[in-house]
Amino acid sequence: METAGFSFELALSGAARAGVLNTPHAAVETPCFMPVGSQATVKTLTPDELKDLGYNLILANNYHLYLRPGTQVVGSYGGIHKFMGWNGALLTDSGGYQVFSLSPLRKMSDDGVTFRSHIDGSEHFFSPELAIKYQEVFGADIIMALDECPPVEASREVIEAAVERTQAWALRCKSARTRTDQSLFPIVQGGLHADLRRRSAEGLIEADFPGYAIGGLAIGESKEQTAEITAATTEILPIDKPRYLMGVGSPEDIVRGVAAGIDMFDSALPTRVARNGALFTRYGRIDIANARYEGDKGPIDNECGCYACQNFSAGYVHHLFRAKELLAYRLATLHNLYFMRRLMTDIRQSILDERYDDFARSFLSDYKPTDESVRLSQKRQWLKDRNSSSPSMD
Amino acid sequence: METAGFSFELALSGAARAGVLNTPHAAVETPCFMPVGSQATVKTLTPDELKDLGYNLILANNYHLYLRPGTQVVGSYGGIHKFMGWNGALLTDSGGYQVFSLSPLRKMSDDGVTFRSHIDGSEHFFSPELAIKYQEVFGADIIMALDECPPVEASREVIEAAVERTQAWALRCKSARTRTDQSLFPIVQGGLHADLRRRSAEGLIEADFPGYAIGGLAIGESKEQTAEITAATTEILPIDKPRYLMGVGSPEDIVRGVAAGIDMFDSALPTRVARNGALFTRYGRIDIANARYEGDKGPIDNECGCYACQNFSAGYVHHLFRAKELLAYRLATLHNLYFMRRLMTDIRQSILDERYDDFARSFLSDYKPTDESVRLSQKRQWLKDRNSSSPSMD
Repeated sequence: METAGFSFELALSGAARAGVLNTPHAAVETPCFMPVGSQATVKTLTPDELKDLGYNLILANNYHLYLRPGTQVVGSYGGIHKFMGWNGALLTDSGGYQVFSLSPLRKMSDDGVTFRSHIDGSEHFFSPELAIKYQEVFGADIIMALDECPPVEASREVIEAAVERTQAWALRCKSARTRTDQSLFPIVQGGLHADLRRRSAEGLIEADFPGYAIGGLAIGESKEQTAEITAATTEILPIDKPRYLMGVGSPEDIVRGVAAGIDMFDSALPTRVARNGALFTRYGRIDIANARYEGDKGPIDNECGCYACQNFSAGYVHHLFRAKELLAYRLATLHNLYFMRRLMTDIRQSILDERYDDFARSFLSDYKPTDESVRLSQKRQWLKDRNSSSPSMD
Repeated sequence: METAGFSFELALSGAARAGVLNTPHAAVETPCFMPVGSQATVKTLTPDELKDLGYNLILANNYHLYLRPGTQVVGSYGGIHKFMGWNGALLTDSGGYQVFSLSPLRKMSDDGVTFRSHIDGSEHFFSPELAIKYQEVFGADIIMALDECPPVEASREVIEAAVERTQAWALRCKSARTRTDQSLFPIVQGGLHADLRRRSAEGLIEADFPGYAIGGLAIGESKEQTAEITAATTEILPIDKPRYLMGVGSPEDIVRGVAAGIDMFDSALPTRVARNGALFTRYGRIDIANARYEGDKGPIDNECGCYACQNFSAGYVHHLFRAKELLAYRLATLHNLYFMRRLMTDIRQSILDERYDDFARSFLSDYKPTDESVRLSQKRQWLKDRNSSSPSMD
């Protein structure tokens, strides 16, 4: 089945690639970062603000929206675009990963996966066919095949079986499609085994899809392993199709992913850490809640043109975080998404100028990644918040 | 001491009054409602959004800002205006009421009040002189005298003593002033005793202030009692000075307050109930989290021109509330503050058109006040939220 309104133009190719992804709702410049709006909202922001930040492709999630408000409700609006008032492009993840990461209980079979809702414990079933059916109701421009996403520490046997199942499910997803205005991307699995990744990619390439995703990475392995497996996979993916590295969104990982030939990224990280006060600068994240920012008259980042930096001092944003004021989370989100958007623009321009290696080297030399202890303490805070009954911070 | 840049023009007078309150930062049309930004932020909104809603006078709080971030920090910015990026007019409450309602422990004497911080339990002292000193650092256009605000159920003896002390403190506040660009309003106390209210008002009028506030109401008594005591007080307040009814902010109470000759109102109610999903329409509050709004394609209110109603469906806002998404609280706040602003504009125009009695009768006949059980359940939710460690919802 052909896909209407979808094409991928590579403006320049090399190890790093600059392109344009044409979708029914928007022409998206790549490499791109997609903000995550799992519940049909990128937390704290309006669609207008996302547009003003320069985004025209965002993510929503099949698992979340199937559970709440449900396919029937979103379908009655004609899909997510109209439901949330977003006229840019949309991508929905199939929910395969969320079934593994959020559901308290699940049972796999070749048919599909039975799982319990993390909201009310009710039982549900996703098959490849149902994952497509629901995503067709939701109406995103790009939809994802249902995959099996085992934990990174699973045995080779488990991961090998997941590769086989993911392959079979991708073909079933392809056959189940009835809409011609959505592009279906399958997901390469294979854990940290380069040969399994290759086998997974080759099987999916054989079946011919308009784009390919790499899943099951950035879920606990080292950054070196992520980069290595990514490169081993992009090596055999077709040059003329977009490649999407799922769940990767730290600035340093994106810069490395682009070097490995990735075109699309998504992650809740920039917005999630923003709500914990971790704000991006080109030298690394700062912790705005730190006492050193009390009374600071300058902006969060001297080099930043975002709404928060143009209108407020770091000391005021610090105060808002200390007082747990809701405006804090908005300003922090605006800041981090502005940073990500500018990073992607800079990346793309340097590719077009054929100086990406220099850009990447310079960026990675300036940017100090968050050390592991800070990263883990922030993740713990996040897990705590998402399990409370307080406003949704996850 | 004269006050620079402050005057009050009554465009039309009668029982209900329309005027213009000139302050150093803005000419404020009255009757006015002032959104509450105790911690130097009107919860969820930017100063730009408040301006777009049509507000040019908002409230901040001496008690909250003295405790966090402190007078030294705010003073280092030159005051609250610069600290929070607000160039409209500001009023700070002295903190007298907060010492009574928030502090876990307090000890009164004629000198002042010793209290414990609700944040960390540390001990602090406010005297009339210190309340002025801090408010001068904060730099609001209108500042309030320190008052003693006993609970509404206190004995007549306690309330009588509070009237005497509030009178003495108002005079000390007046003497303590060193800035000429701030207007000091004293606060009439007296509980539900008309004769004590009269005594309090007469004493303060004798001392001649640029405006007068009525405090210690809307804190648990019936709406009839609020209206009765308000009218008994405005009766003897000078016609040519602004009158400010503190802590009153439900639409029906404001309409009645204007009829009793009040010019200024403040309350956290419109923004607080918004965050609990209670949204104003001219027929009363609706509960947007109610299942009836699931999938509703129309706006929250057909007659509303606010950003939420112009851009989103009631069903989407319902979803955001169910999912506890932070955007819910923003959209709800925008809606309720838009409603309040339009209400005040309509009130003012009908006074200028000399048809306020008709307006008030028609409004009060359409508007169904929230019944007491709903009101109490919402208040309980609020008290629960404000005592948790989650984002500041109070």
